Amino acid sequence: MTKRLITFLLLVTLPVISAIAQDTTIRDLGVEIGVLNTGPLNSITDVYGVKVGHYTLIQGSDVRTGATAILAHDGNIFQQKVPAAIYIGNGFGKLAGYSQVEELGNIETPIILTNTLSVPTAADALIDYTLSQEGNEDVRSVNPVVGETNDGYLNDIRGQHITKKHVISAIKAADSNKVQQGNVGAGTGTRAFGFKGGIGSSSRVLPEKLGGYTVGALVQTNFGGVLEIAGVPVGKELNKYYLSDSLNGSPDGSCMMVLATDAPLDARNLKRLAKRAVMGLAKTGGIASNGSGDYVIAFSTSESVRIPYSAEQPITTVELLRNERMSPLFMAAIEATEEAIINSLFAAETMEGRDGHVLQSIPKDKIIKLLKDYGRITE
Amino acid sequence: MTKRLITFLLLVTLPVISAIAQDTTIRDLGVEIGVLNTGPLNSITDVYGVKVGHYTLIQGSDVRTGATAILAHDGNIFQQKVPAAIYIGNGFGKLAGYSQVEELGNIETPIILTNTLSVPTAADALIDYTLSQEGNEDVRSVNPVVGETNDGYLNDIRGQHITKKHVISAIKAADSNKVQQGNVGAGTGTRAFGFKGGIGSSSRVLPEKLGGYTVGALVQTNFGGVLEIAGVPVGKELNKYYLSDSLNGSPDGSCMMVLATDAPLDARNLKRLAKRAVMGLAKTGGIASNGSGDYVIAFSTSESVRIPYSAEQPITTVELLRNERMSPLFMAAIEATEEAIINSLFAAETMEGRDGHVLQSIPKDKIIKLLKDYGRITE
Amino acid sequence: MTKRLITFLLLVTLPVISAIAQDTTIRDLGVEIGVLNTGPLNSITDVYGVKVGHYTLIQGSDVRTGATAILAHDGNIFQQKVPAAIYIGNGFGKLAGYSQVEELGNIETPIILTNTLSVPTAADALIDYTLSQEGNEDVRSVNPVVGETNDGYLNDIRGQHITKKHVISAIKAADSNKVQQGNVGAGTGTRAFGFKGGIGSSSRVLPEKLGGYTVGALVQTNFGGVLEIAGVPVGKELNKYYLSDSLNGSPDGSCMMVLATDAPLDARNLKRLAKRAVMGLAKTGGIASNGSGDYVIAFSTSESVRIPYSAEQPITTVELLRNERMSPLFMAAIEATEEAIINSLFAAETMEGRDGHVLQSIPKDKIIKLLKDYGRITE
Amino acid sequence: MTKRLITFLLLVTLPVISAIAQDTTIRDLGVEIGVLNTGPLNSITDVYGVKVGHYTLIQGSDVRTGATAILAHDGNIFQQKVPAAIYIGNGFGKLAGYSQVEELGNIETPIILTNTLSVPTAADALIDYTLSQEGNEDVRSVNPVVGETNDGYLNDIRGQHITKKHVISAIKAADSNKVQQGNVGAGTGTRAFGFKGGIGSSSRVLPEKLGGYTVGALVQTNFGGVLEIAGVPVGKELNKYYLSDSLNGSPDGSCMMVLATDAPLDARNLKRLAKRAVMGLAKTGGIASNGSGDYVIAFSTSESVRIPYSAEQPITTVELLRNERMSPLFMAAIEATEEAIINSLFAAETMEGRDGHVLQSIPKDKIIKLLKDYGRITE
Repeated sequence: MTKRLITFLLLVTLPVISAIAQDTTIRDLGVEIGVLNTGPLNSITDVYGVKVGHYTLIQGSDVRTGATAILAHDGNIFQQKVPAAIYIGNGFGKLAGYSQVEELGNIETPIILTNTLSVPTAADALIDYTLSQEGNEDVRSVNPVVGETNDGYLNDIRGQHITKKHVISAIKAADSNKVQQGNVGAGTGTRAFGFKGGIGSSSRVLPEKLGGYTVGALVQTNFGGVLEIAGVPVGKELNKYYLSDSLNGSPDGSCMMVLATDAPLDARNLKRLAKRAVMGLAKTGGIASNGSGDYVIAFSTSESVRIPYSAEQPITTVELLRNERMSPLFMAAIEATEEAIINSLFAAETMEGRDGHVLQSIPKDKIIKLLKDYGRITE
Repeated sequence: MTKRLITFLLLVTLPVISAIAQDTTIRDLGVEIGVLNTGPLNSITDVYGVKVGHYTLIQGSDVRTGATAILAHDGNIFQQKVPAAIYIGNGFGKLAGYSQVEELGNIETPIILTNTLSVPTAADALIDYTLSQEGNEDVRSVNPVVGETNDGYLNDIRGQHITKKHVISAIKAADSNKVQQGNVGAGTGTRAFGFKGGIGSSSRVLPEKLGGYTVGALVQTNFGGVLEIAGVPVGKELNKYYLSDSLNGSPDGSCMMVLATDAPLDARNLKRLAKRAVMGLAKTGGIASNGSGDYVIAFSTSESVRIPYSAEQPITTVELLRNERMSPLFMAAIEATEEAIINSLFAAETMEGRDGHVLQSIPKDKIIKLLKDYGRITE
Repeated sequence: MTKRLITFLLLVTLPVISAIAQDTTIRDLGVEIGVLNTGPLNSITDVYGVKVGHYTLIQGSDVRTGATAILAHDGNIFQQKVPAAIYIGNGFGKLAGYSQVEELGNIETPIILTNTLSVPTAADALIDYTLSQEGNEDVRSVNPVVGETNDGYLNDIRGQHITKKHVISAIKAADSNKVQQGNVGAGTGTRAFGFKGGIGSSSRVLPEKLGGYTVGALVQTNFGGVLEIAGVPVGKELNKYYLSDSLNGSPDGSCMMVLATDAPLDARNLKRLAKRAVMGLAKTGGIASNGSGDYVIAFSTSESVRIPYSAEQPITTVELLRNERMSPLFMAAIEATEEAIINSLFAAETMEGRDGHVLQSIPKDKIIKLLKDYGRITE
Repeated sequence: MTKRLITFLLLVTLPVISAIAQDTTIRDLGVEIGVLNTGPLNSITDVYGVKVGHYTLIQGSDVRTGATAILAHDGNIFQQKVPAAIYIGNGFGKLAGYSQVEELGNIETPIILTNTLSVPTAADALIDYTLSQEGNEDVRSVNPVVGETNDGYLNDIRGQHITKKHVISAIKAADSNKVQQGNVGAGTGTRAFGFKGGIGSSSRVLPEKLGGYTVGALVQTNFGGVLEIAGVPVGKELNKYYLSDSLNGSPDGSCMMVLATDAPLDARNLKRLAKRAVMGLAKTGGIASNGSGDYVIAFSTSESVRIPYSAEQPITTVELLRNERMSPLFMAAIEATEEAIINSLFAAETMEGRDGHVLQSIPKDKIIKLLKDYGRITE
């Protein structure tokens, strides 16, 4: 029996899929990515304390951009820093804040994602935000953390339309609900695997005997390669992948990844966790191309590792997870990142932008068919 | 139609597979990993100049180990160094030679892979080998490059059975034929995904318009996670994966990966290439667990970037591939590494070793069935 | 004979130093730092192609800041990138541009130095500058490189007084003359070793037989420790050094260092060169304190390693200095950085700023006396 | 009054120094390096728990080598690991153990220093030592940490005369007395600044209000540059420095540096501490030449950060010094390293070795005279 025959049988025996809801996720289709359970929201906000907000900027025919804010906790982050690390998968990007996070092992502002040429504006907004917070009246040094991808295909990126107000709006909008995905915030104008990309999120919860910790991922997808969904070679089957047509087809772009966990980790183990996110990206068919800026920012919200800005005592007592307990968290980071990327693709809708450029959303009908052909959806 | 029904149909319509030859590869089954073509041998030896040799040590009931040598070219490697880089995916390992390769950007000895506790012996052997080579009479400093994984489950690793002679034998045995895979050389006693691991190799050739370069991978597989073969969730289906049974099931071990290419790359771009091998590992379900030593050694055999030990002239003229031409090579490295890992599993045979420990080879019949269930084998 | 007696003899036999000119340098006093010769200007502009410009912003009683621009060459830097590397001595700083420089090995904008909270503004200015340059009409991605130190002791840094216009003015002002030093540009409000710091520069030229290459350094000094000038323990003798008074005396601040050379180096060897600048800093008594942002940006102006943005050919032919020829350049980098720091202190003048804070210039009379006591000035 | 006249006056007025004892140190001469106090022994063994042992191998006319062991504590180090980090100043060296120390943040064996070509032998000895320790019967993975410099000028290094027994002897000889310095252990055959180098050690103790912590340094000096002693340009005055004679004079060699502290630091802050040792090296005139292997291994002996190999609990409670308390420790590391290097030179005696090569000890008479000329010795 050939694949064609199976496909035929499937087609005739399945009920016609007349309309796939826009908010259908891969998981709604019955496909599980990995082996661990998701959190209740399947969102980075499953991690205790994490809040996310978007500002989406769509104007006229060519402004398609935005900003996304991720907050590690509810309080004054400058005064109560969180341990953090940044891993650079491929450094063709303009992320702000790298060296201080690495040196001191912490983050002291909300994390902002936006477009490439708006990083300075977002960094400036974070400085304003921090200087003006109650309790920060004497602060004279702030390390804004801003990531980006290049939405210049759909967006008039040279116009630098993001303002500081937009960024502050994203911070203000942050809440702990399920993260809005797709063409929102920093994902408004992005492109992934030749389709419309966007914001995606997912989470994993470890079994209680492994600590019961949660790992959440949020991604801004704007990269290329050979798309795979749950192991199914979608890009290849659709004949839409890097190198499929010509040398000119570029897989470039970037993927910003943010990982949060409530496990009590220090910067060293957060760096190790961050590295695993790129492995999740790999499983979607990403290749971290030359022109890609693939960065992972990881932080812990555990109060037992929180770092107060000023302290009477020279010594801090912290509770840290031992090295050999990291493996389940690594697996969680890989799975959550993979699913967050797929979620971004499922949530993103077709969009037209600059110079009449159009990015189609992934063809869900075809993908569902492929998921069936490849035994991922069985009924 | 359920998956079960499809499977049933497949089973009745397919000719019975009465015997799957030991040397059957995933590619023999009609499954292609990725989108690029392999080289003629589908082996790291497709890269011009590369030679590989094994020494396999199987003695009594508990010695199951060996050494594998990879040579960048036929000549005196100390006198004609090759540009190289080493990427550390997860550094729980004992690789020798890292810092000098990173500082100077080159490798000056054959690369040896062996078991964890035999790294010093192998390094010593490389020193002997280099000091005794014609033309090296005045050499007083040698940077041996030795990688390892821990074969202690099957092998009496504490016995340190590898001798310098064994290592020299591996070097002497090196040739440019298709690499022997499975339970040979440094892969003799290794374990991967709970099955018997070993040595694997694969290669990719870029289209002529992209330079026609070859990238070859050789791996020593000894790690864990949730096995996927060509995107098919084999580990999950077989209920044999990290965290499947109990907390005690360890995904630890390691994966040594060696990449060779004839593309004219300097150390910086070789480092970038090396990073992509871990993305190939990720696609097989590896998670780079806490206890894993996942290292990638990458080198170029191109004569236009060769580095003579001594030179009259202070300036060297080199021809280098531009950054933006790297993406196809990145994709080649990912694909070749993924397939090399799968090849190691297909080639490895069931082995009994220390304390009666037994590692089964992957169950090919079941895997073939799964490959069919998941639409990877269609007839 | 005690030191006091020697000092007495010196004092009576020397002509009275009635007035030490503001522009007196350590070298004018007859003290040579190191063993290599300086270039004709003893300035980073001795390196072929390098241009430097300042914008100094002094307003009212509390604005004491500015910007300094370093240009690698006269042309369109985005279109003709230069190989570069950044070394992080201590990463408590906000430098923009790190990861892309490290990934791709090049710099594509002028380098701007300014104050900590004006990094985003300067980065934004570099984006504007680049987007608006002739030939860059299609550019949609720019990696601005901006360094900083915190001039908040004298300057109302929270006021963020630097504008994009100021930054562009610094770029426009750039020329290849001897660099103006002291309280100018990014050095306007800085503090070093408890004294007034500022901008400093120096250069070294290798002997012809070693290639005749020039290495130039430019520094923005804003750090602490135990000041030494030409090996003389000035800080200790003046009882003005870190830990001399109380725990509260902070050595924090930062030192931005920029190295230029006309030697044909790739990014790897530029990174090695950059590391040596911190060794020059060490010789002035700097300790790279916890709160210090000590960064070194190194680039080569050699046309034989220039990197065109776009190229027809996938291969670039470059001429590179061999590793073993680097040592004299390392020595040059150490010496030039040390002298540039000392030059910044000699050139800086006493300044009053924010909240009535005053930073005295180094006490040249006392220092000259110490240089004599310690045998550095002999007549 | 010229320097010559001062010198003359000094010479006639000072008592004749008829014999400078071999064990005279720079501090015996009244010269203090830096501003902090030393510990009681001015030795790395001032750090609570640290023990050091040497094995010195001098045979016939051409064997001039040895091994030095540094133990972080008295117990089973594999079972009670210590937090640690390794900083690579210049990586032209063969240090074993780097990647695992960096990944896991700890050291699990004694540290051995020896000659370049004996690293594998020393690593092998550490494996034997660890496997045979009581309590390690099930250990199957050991990360030996071995540093080296190249003593091939005096020593028949190609002969690889160090055996595992020698290394074990060094470990067995370890005690907490003042470290024996000069031509002992791994310093037996080394060369520094063109003179006889060797082993040196020094320590610093912070004031009580800064925690009262001790930082100790141990060095194996085998490198070059332009020697400075307490800021006095000795190399220049003696006309014996890199580039002084000809291109052929090599500054190569290496410097192994080991830092111990009882401050409760994790691996991240130990890495930062380690970086400062190179700043101490810089102050002696070292340039970290191309051929130099300059490595710093730093560890903490504080019991509050000790890492048990196995633990029932997944969480460890540790007490850590806060980032902003690091600066005094940084200063201590710089000072102790500088003085340890100078101590190695003062302690080393003239030695003849391979092929009649002779390395003179530093000319103490001349140096004392220079220290006087340069105001460092006042009487």
